[in-house]
Amino acid sequence: MIEAAAYTVIAPDVQSADGCRVWAFTVIGSGVVMGARCVVGSHSYIGRETVMGDDVRIQSLVFLPNRTRLGARVFIGPGVVMTDDKHPRVNHPDYDAQPPIIDDDVSIGAGAVILPGIHLYAGCMVGAGAIVTHDVPAGETWAGLPAKRLHRWPTPPIGGGWLTRTRGTP
Amino acid sequence: MIEAAAYTVIAPDVQSADGCRVWAFTVIGSGVVMGARCVVGSHSYIGRETVMGDDVRIQSLVFLPNRTRLGARVFIGPGVVMTDDKHPRVNHPDYDAQPPIIDDDVSIGAGAVILPGIHLYAGCMVGAGAIVTHDVPAGETWAGLPAKRLHRWPTPPIGGGWLTRTRGTP
Amino acid sequence: MIEAAAYTVIAPDVQSADGCRVWAFTVIGSGVVMGARCVVGSHSYIGRETVMGDDVRIQSLVFLPNRTRLGARVFIGPGVVMTDDKHPRVNHPDYDAQPPIIDDDVSIGAGAVILPGIHLYAGCMVGAGAIVTHDVPAGETWAGLPAKRLHRWPTPPIGGGWLTRTRGTP
Repeated sequence: MIEAAAYTVIAPDVQSADGCRVWAFTVIGSGVVMGARCVVGSHSYIGRETVMGDDVRIQSLVFLPNRTRLGARVFIGPGVVMTDDKHPRVNHPDYDAQPPIIDDDVSIGAGAVILPGIHLYAGCMVGAGAIVTHDVPAGETWAGLPAKRLHRWPTPPIGGGWLTRTRGTP
Repeated sequence: MIEAAAYTVIAPDVQSADGCRVWAFTVIGSGVVMGARCVVGSHSYIGRETVMGDDVRIQSLVFLPNRTRLGARVFIGPGVVMTDDKHPRVNHPDYDAQPPIIDDDVSIGAGAVILPGIHLYAGCMVGAGAIVTHDVPAGETWAGLPAKRLHRWPTPPIGGGWLTRTRGTP
Repeated sequence: MIEAAAYTVIAPDVQSADGCRVWAFTVIGSGVVMGARCVVGSHSYIGRETVMGDDVRIQSLVFLPNRTRLGARVFIGPGVVMTDDKHPRVNHPDYDAQPPIIDDDVSIGAGAVILPGIHLYAGCMVGAGAIVTHDVPAGETWAGLPAKRLHRWPTPPIGGGWLTRTRGTP
């Protein structure tokens, strides 16, 4: 059950657990599966067959390609763009979509760009405006262009949720 | 009084002086105060209780967090994202919002990202695509990732408005 | 003839060849001319009098200023922002718009920002998140902030279309 603002486009076959909300001017594509209490901000595009764990927070102006996989408690800041095509060309005959995989408790800062096929491991953090061209290991913070490691978390992040996989995470 | 395009979401308690315009697919949050002749482009999200001086120009695809403060004659280019949370995490117990403060006559280039708690002082300019991690002094131009000083304005910018606070600026 | 999703704003004087599609929450400005089979994704703003060749693909959350010129088979990734004003200031008395010129078979990666007056020559590619401050020669790939050359294409890109101007390209 989704509580939707005015002016939303939500495909009829979207599945969602309780407590989900979608803000104005957002598109939720066909086949998307949303865990409990997920919130998607305004002006966002959630590609087809994307799967979200529980308590995901997606801010405004976010683009997720088809079949993006998001764990539980993932935070995606405003203006974040993810991609799935390493060699974008019009009518590319060898187009092989590589959507991102985002594990539990990952936070992605505003305006970051995630390149195709990237895996962000549990509890890592991506700085605002980072261009992420390599996988980010669990619990690390990366930033810059291209993104590089800033530091490891000295202690588990709030809640410690990234140490154990959470029931209900896809 | 706001002249609003089709498909806008403007909270009923928004206050505005004469001559304001809001383009399609834009959200103006509750408690926002707009000075005279402000223009907000398409696909933008203006957070709750944001305050704008006179003659502000906000382009398309802009995100402003709640309680952003904009002086008079602020120019915000397309795709600019501002933030208020230094340590974004889902259900963060210590969340302490630090919205940006933008003084009179500031111009922010397209696609720039402004980190939480940043103060952009009067008449400064932020280059397109800059990631702004520190306050920018009055009259300077900063660009890059992270943004660094390019130069000072040799003369006051057009109008010289930044030398004196303007009546009506919040 | 344009096949338009719900919630689109398409000026009545837009001209288009067969097979064009426009997704939700997108604005197509007055005087735009679209070639055959062009697709514009969601949440995009196509400035007035922009001209597109055939088979252009514009993804979501894209901003094109007025009078942008796009050749045939141009690919524009999600979140790309183009600009036309080198010295943005509110009520600038010397405002001289310099929209971008994008030749045939150019691909622009997600989240890239294109500065005013830039010419992207035929078949070149711009990396995701690049900030493009100089013209990009034909067939080269540029990335970074500011964008610099990564390499030349060893062979013509798929289709080889950039070697010859295409009938119907503006």
